[in-house]
Amino acid sequence: MKTRLYNARLLTMDNGTEVTEGEIWIDGDTITYAGSDVPDIEASGPQFDVVRDCGRNVLMPSFKDAHTHSAMTGMRSYADDMPLWEWLSTKIFPLEAKLEAKDIYEFTKLAVLEYLAGGVTAVFDMYSYPDETASACREMGIRYVGCCDINKFGPNIDEVGKRYERLNKNDGFSSYFIGFHAEYTCTKELLAELSAIAAEYKSPVFTHNSETEKEVRECWERHNMSPTQLFESLDMFRYGGGGYHCVYLDDEDIEIFKAHDLTVVTNPGSNTKLASGIAPVTRYLKEGINVAIGTDGPSSNNSLDMFREMFLVTGLAKLHDMDAAAAVPSEVLKMATVNGSRCMGLNDCDVLAPGKKADIIMIDMHQPNMQPINNIADNIVYSGSRANVKMTMCAGSILYEDGVFIGQDAEKIYDSANSIMAKYRE
Amino acid sequence: MKTRLYNARLLTMDNGTEVTEGEIWIDGDTITYAGSDVPDIEASGPQFDVVRDCGRNVLMPSFKDAHTHSAMTGMRSYADDMPLWEWLSTKIFPLEAKLEAKDIYEFTKLAVLEYLAGGVTAVFDMYSYPDETASACREMGIRYVGCCDINKFGPNIDEVGKRYERLNKNDGFSSYFIGFHAEYTCTKELLAELSAIAAEYKSPVFTHNSETEKEVRECWERHNMSPTQLFESLDMFRYGGGGYHCVYLDDEDIEIFKAHDLTVVTNPGSNTKLASGIAPVTRYLKEGINVAIGTDGPSSNNSLDMFREMFLVTGLAKLHDMDAAAAVPSEVLKMATVNGSRCMGLNDCDVLAPGKKADIIMIDMHQPNMQPINNIADNIVYSGSRANVKMTMCAGSILYEDGVFIGQDAEKIYDSANSIMAKYRE
Repeated sequence: MKTRLYNARLLTMDNGTEVTEGEIWIDGDTITYAGSDVPDIEASGPQFDVVRDCGRNVLMPSFKDAHTHSAMTGMRSYADDMPLWEWLSTKIFPLEAKLEAKDIYEFTKLAVLEYLAGGVTAVFDMYSYPDETASACREMGIRYVGCCDINKFGPNIDEVGKRYERLNKNDGFSSYFIGFHAEYTCTKELLAELSAIAAEYKSPVFTHNSETEKEVRECWERHNMSPTQLFESLDMFRYGGGGYHCVYLDDEDIEIFKAHDLTVVTNPGSNTKLASGIAPVTRYLKEGINVAIGTDGPSSNNSLDMFREMFLVTGLAKLHDMDAAAAVPSEVLKMATVNGSRCMGLNDCDVLAPGKKADIIMIDMHQPNMQPINNIADNIVYSGSRANVKMTMCAGSILYEDGVFIGQDAEKIYDSANSIMAKYRE
Repeated sequence: MKTRLYNARLLTMDNGTEVTEGEIWIDGDTITYAGSDVPDIEASGPQFDVVRDCGRNVLMPSFKDAHTHSAMTGMRSYADDMPLWEWLSTKIFPLEAKLEAKDIYEFTKLAVLEYLAGGVTAVFDMYSYPDETASACREMGIRYVGCCDINKFGPNIDEVGKRYERLNKNDGFSSYFIGFHAEYTCTKELLAELSAIAAEYKSPVFTHNSETEKEVRECWERHNMSPTQLFESLDMFRYGGGGYHCVYLDDEDIEIFKAHDLTVVTNPGSNTKLASGIAPVTRYLKEGINVAIGTDGPSSNNSLDMFREMFLVTGLAKLHDMDAAAAVPSEVLKMATVNGSRCMGLNDCDVLAPGKKADIIMIDMHQPNMQPINNIADNIVYSGSRANVKMTMCAGSILYEDGVFIGQDAEKIYDSANSIMAKYRE
C-alpha cells in the first residue's frame, strides 16, 4: 500500500526541531520520501492508495512511551492519593492477584486506544501475562517492547528465557528485554540468576530504579550500596539497559549509567502523583545520559498522555533547578521520540526520513491552543494536548484519525473493562 | 429558550463530588431543574427548544479561570525558557508597548476559543485595554471579570474609577475590580491612591502577590515588609480581594489573608514554566483560605487549560508536602469551579442547581482516558484532558460542541492573530 501525506509542515526530528514545508510518501510500512523538494508524481509514477491533504498541519514521529504497565488501565482511579508502597501493598497487589490472562488482554486493549488517541505507537511495557499484552498491541497495530517483571513472588526463573525466546519475534512488533520489578522485590540470588540469563541472551536489563528515597535507603541498609551499585556488582549491565524513574541516582550511580550507556526513563506524572520526588533530568542530560520519557501505568499517573509528561519533564526540571531555561522543548521532544526509540531497540522508528518506519502522527494546528504559530516546537511542548493528535499511523497504517479508532469497537472495549472491574472491585 | 439535557451523570458540585444519574432543564440563562427525580414532562408541559441526549456523559459546572491575561495569546511561544523578570523586561514589555486596542480584541477572541474548547466560561482578566477584552468576551458569550492592571507606567489614576464604572455592568457578563499589576511596578503613593479608590467603590482589591522570592525580598528591602503587609498597611483589603500566585506568603501574610477573607489564586502552570516555585496550597486550605485556580496568561504557561492546572495543583502539592494524599480531587474540582466563582463575584455560576446560571460543561466519558469508571472525580482530575470537553454552555447557550465553535469563524481568528504577530515579531 502506498500513501501520500502532502501540504504538511514536517518536524522530522532528524535536524533538531527545524520545521519545513513538504510531504511524506510511504510504501508499505516504510517512508520513501520526506521533504519539500517533491519528486514529480507523474514522472516517478507511484500509484497512491491513500492520499491526505494535511492542511498545513504538522507531521512528526509518533511518541514512544518508554515505561508503562498498560494493563493497569483497569485500576485507573481505583486507588488514588496514596504513597507508592502503601498503594502497591494494600490496593494494587491484592487486586492484581485476582487478575487473569484474559483481563490483561482486555485492559491492554483499552490502553492501546488511549495510546493511539495520544499519538503513541510503541510501548515499553512491564507486566504480568506479557503474551496477552503483546497480542493486544499486535492486533491493534502498535509495537510492543516487553520487559520481564520477575520478582520473588513470580514467575518462575525458568519462564524468563522462554518469554525472551517467545516474545522476541524480530518483526518490529514484539520484542522483549530481560528485567525485573525492582531491588526491593527481588533477592540478591534472584538478581544473580537474572544477570546470567541476560549474559546468555546478550540482553539489556531494565528495572524500576531509585524511584523513592525509601527504596534507596532500604537498599543501602540491606546491601550497603545503592540499587544501581548492587546491579553493577552483579554485572547486570554488560549489554546495557537502564532504569525506570531514577529520581535518586547518586554520583557513583551516574558514572555506572555513563559507563554502560544506560538509559534513564523519566516518569514525571507518576513521580508527582505518588509524591516520589523530582528527577534531576538536566543533570542526566548534561552528563550525556540517554533520557527517555514514560507515563508509567495508568493507575499511578493516571493517564497515558505523553503531552502531559512532556510539559512535566520541562516544568519539573525548571522547578528542580529553579532555572526557567532548563530542559527546553527541543530536548524534550527528542526524549519523547528519538531517545525512547533508542532505548527500546526501535532504531528505525525514531525520525521521519526515507528508509525509516512510517510511525507518524499529525498534530492539528487548527485549534486555538496551537495559535498563533510563533514557534511550533514550543507550541507542542508548552501548550499542546492530546486533543491536538489528528492522526496516528504505525508502520504505514492509519490507526486513529479525527477521533475515530479505525477498525476498533471502542465501546465494546470500555464495556469489557467496566465488567471486569465490577467483578473485582470491593 | 428552553433546553433539556437528559441521560446524564450529574456532578453538580453542590454536594461534594457525588455523582448521580439525572438531567438538567434550563430556561433562558437559568437552571430550572437538576436531578434524578425527573418531573413528568407532559404534565409540567415545557416546550424544549434544544434537547440533548447526554449519552451518560458527565454534566458539571464550567471552569472559572481565576487569573489570566487573555490577550497574551498573541505572544504564545514567542519568548520561552526565561525567568519572570527577564521575560517581562526584555521580551514582553517591549512587544506589549507596540500593541494597539484592536490587537487586544483579536488576541482575546483567540483566547475565548481556547477557553470554550477547554470548558471555561468566565475569566478573571488583567490586561491593558480592558474594554476590548470585555467586548470580545461578551460578543463570544463568556463572562468577563476584569481587574485593574495599573502600575507606574500607566494608565492615569483617573482612568481607574472610569473603568470601574464603565465595566461594572451588573448584567453578569462584565464586572470589574480595583487592582494593580504588582508591588514592584507601583510606588507606595500610587498604592495609597488606589486604596482610597477601592474604599470609595467598596471594591475588593487583587494583584500579583509574592510570585517570586525576588519580588518578596526586594519588597522587604524597599519597605521593610512583605507585599501583603505593605498592602495591609495601606488598608487596601477593607472590602476583601486576594492575590494571584501567592507562592511565598509568610505566616503574617496568611493571617492577613484570613482576617480579610482574601482569595489565593494559584497558577501552577506559570509558576512551573517560569521556575517561580511551588505554592504551599495545602497550608492555605488548612488555614481555611479560599483557593481558586488560574492559568495565568498564555505567554507564561503557555496554554489556557484548566485540566493541566488541576493536575498541577494536586501534583505539585503532593511534591511540595511529599505527601501523596495532598490536595485530593474533590478539593481541586471545588477550586476550579466553586472557589473561582466566589472570588470573581459570580455567586450564581458556581454549582448546578435550580436558580443558578446555566454555565455547564459536558465531559465525554466515551474516550479511553476516562475508562473504566472507578471514580469520576479522580478520572477528571488525574486523567482528564481538554479533549474530554464535549460541550460548553454559558448562560444557557451552547457555545462549543463536538469540536465546533458555534457561530465563530475560528480560522479567521487564527489568521488575524498570525497577521498581527507577523507585523510585530522581530
